[in-house]
Amino acid sequence: MEIAELGEFGLIRHLTDDIEIKNPETLKGVGDDCAVLAFGDDKRVLVTTDLLMEGVHFDLQYTPLRHLGYKSAIVNLSDIYAMNGRPRQMTVSLALSKRFCVEDLEAFYDGLRMACDAHGCDIVGGDTTSSLTGLAISITCIGDVAKDKAVFRNGAKDTDLICVTGDLGAAYMGLQLLEREKGVYNAQIREARQRGEDLSALPPFEPDFSGREYLLERQLKPEARKDIIEALDKAGIVPTAMMDISDGLSSELHHICQQSHAGCRIYEERLPLDYQTAAMAEELNLNVTTCALNGGEDYELLFTVPLTMHDSVSAIPGVKVIGHITKPELGLQLVCRDGAEMELKAQGWNPLKMENRE
Amino acid sequence: MEIAELGEFGLIRHLTDDIEIKNPETLKGVGDDCAVLAFGDDKRVLVTTDLLMEGVHFDLQYTPLRHLGYKSAIVNLSDIYAMNGRPRQMTVSLALSKRFCVEDLEAFYDGLRMACDAHGCDIVGGDTTSSLTGLAISITCIGDVAKDKAVFRNGAKDTDLICVTGDLGAAYMGLQLLEREKGVYNAQIREARQRGEDLSALPPFEPDFSGREYLLERQLKPEARKDIIEALDKAGIVPTAMMDISDGLSSELHHICQQSHAGCRIYEERLPLDYQTAAMAEELNLNVTTCALNGGEDYELLFTVPLTMHDSVSAIPGVKVIGHITKPELGLQLVCRDGAEMELKAQGWNPLKMENRE
Repeated sequence: MEIAELGEFGLIRHLTDDIEIKNPETLKGVGDDCAVLAFGDDKRVLVTTDLLMEGVHFDLQYTPLRHLGYKSAIVNLSDIYAMNGRPRQMTVSLALSKRFCVEDLEAFYDGLRMACDAHGCDIVGGDTTSSLTGLAISITCIGDVAKDKAVFRNGAKDTDLICVTGDLGAAYMGLQLLEREKGVYNAQIREARQRGEDLSALPPFEPDFSGREYLLERQLKPEARKDIIEALDKAGIVPTAMMDISDGLSSELHHICQQSHAGCRIYEERLPLDYQTAAMAEELNLNVTTCALNGGEDYELLFTVPLTMHDSVSAIPGVKVIGHITKPELGLQLVCRDGAEMELKAQGWNPLKMENRE
Repeated sequence: MEIAELGEFGLIRHLTDDIEIKNPETLKGVGDDCAVLAFGDDKRVLVTTDLLMEGVHFDLQYTPLRHLGYKSAIVNLSDIYAMNGRPRQMTVSLALSKRFCVEDLEAFYDGLRMACDAHGCDIVGGDTTSSLTGLAISITCIGDVAKDKAVFRNGAKDTDLICVTGDLGAAYMGLQLLEREKGVYNAQIREARQRGEDLSALPPFEPDFSGREYLLERQLKPEARKDIIEALDKAGIVPTAMMDISDGLSSELHHICQQSHAGCRIYEERLPLDYQTAAMAEELNLNVTTCALNGGEDYELLFTVPLTMHDSVSAIPGVKVIGHITKPELGLQLVCRDGAEMELKAQGWNPLKMENRE
């Protein structure tokens, strides 16, 4: 179905009509100038926003729109958890180029709603407009947290333990894999064209992802660590500092150390890696530690807790202690497997770096 | 200065470092995963968002970045006032193509901050990333309103008076004027090229805006009607329904009537018009009433009040009663100057209409 048939308001109604409100704080969702929310005196409201651009943040050649919707929600939900909060509401703005049809948007919203449902988050508004070029997605997520439970980046103290959840580097490896297969596919098409063959007669392209499904899932369908926030709460642990790992562990450690006026020491042998990540790194001749430190898009949590909590935090499934906070003058150090120490550089993905700004 | 020199975090710091927090509810702004806000039990939180795309919503050939920043803020602030609220916080996301330099963004933020300062709104976060093509601007504004003072679109009742603020159609006329002068300029360049002339030797282009300054200002530097919200409050008036006029009066009346299950009758002779709007319409051979009804981008307020409030609402400077609400079966009617009645069609600007989706 052509989007123009529905028009802007028709499209919004079509996509949001059957959205059920899940939170009592959501008094009014889609359909007025603003969404209307209620929060009590003992709560803090959290707001985060992300702008995702086609060709920069995602490649529609290998990203199904359902996955894109899911991931777009997750990256914002993850920021709310990173404050020790719970997501409550989300606004979703899309700028669409002509090539999208209503079914495409339904797929996007399906994924988006699947993520929101899993995390108890209401879609309360947004903006749908056109784009002369690629797809732009802007999402704002609102959450809440008890007055005294919000966790910032600036509270890490000397001797605090540094913890990460899940494993690192897999999403980055998934991206490398997708890019490799895209290259193979595009080369096949190019060669067929040069030979003057009928492209529609080519056998369907079958990308080689066997044994690498976990990496693909980490790239295309990441998760936000609601489970960890719940487990920390249950264990009575409020981290001293926390953030989510979107640009890469190394970059995030720099943020926490800078804002906490601290240094850190982490241990290479303690970095959590999945077997597929290590195998793929070897296949691509990449250093797996570099990938784990700088790959990004993990959407795991990085947090610090007082040393005294070692046992209780270690008992939470999926949490790994990778090092500790030090005095600021000691800098940010990585202790390698051979015992050598090297300075941690923040080489996380920077969308404004020269080479990325094509 | 090249943006790449600063990097993403450097750029954000550069643009937001000296932002002073104005609202006690803003506990934490830029610099963490989320902004952190506090709202009391007796308040409602309002959230609105807009996504503005280069080539669709603005043309950088004639829109100075300072004005674009100002207007980007205003369109969101206006939505908060449209709920009878006060703006408190704003997040600002930008996707930038390579051609922008740091000074461009400073100009954008100057305009943005000028608007936020005038309306007591804190900039609390955002996202700055790159775009392969044009500039994308996504703004989310958060406001609050006393529990029992929020005004929706669905409260208009039979016999309520329909009021609009300011005057209508001027922003649309300003756009026509800018487009006309852009056409003249582009034609001069084209002709000079055809004659093989040195373009840099051409005399500077002087667009003809004389006597039309008000129209330009309405298009490039619109205002949000904080003053009206304050005046209504002072007069003890809570409208029964309200929204801001962004897509055109006609389109907005359809929203209010649809959501309030009502009809309306408005009077052509009572539509507020500026002299320059009328003169420009005549010059361009356009029907000025059509422009006032469907032009859009006025960012004035449209609201309804009970009939008994006629005198108190008429006494507010800048407010004009243009008609009244009727039973739904009477439809939406425009009473023309000659007494004839015609149905009001919503022809407001639709960014997803076929002809706009190039």
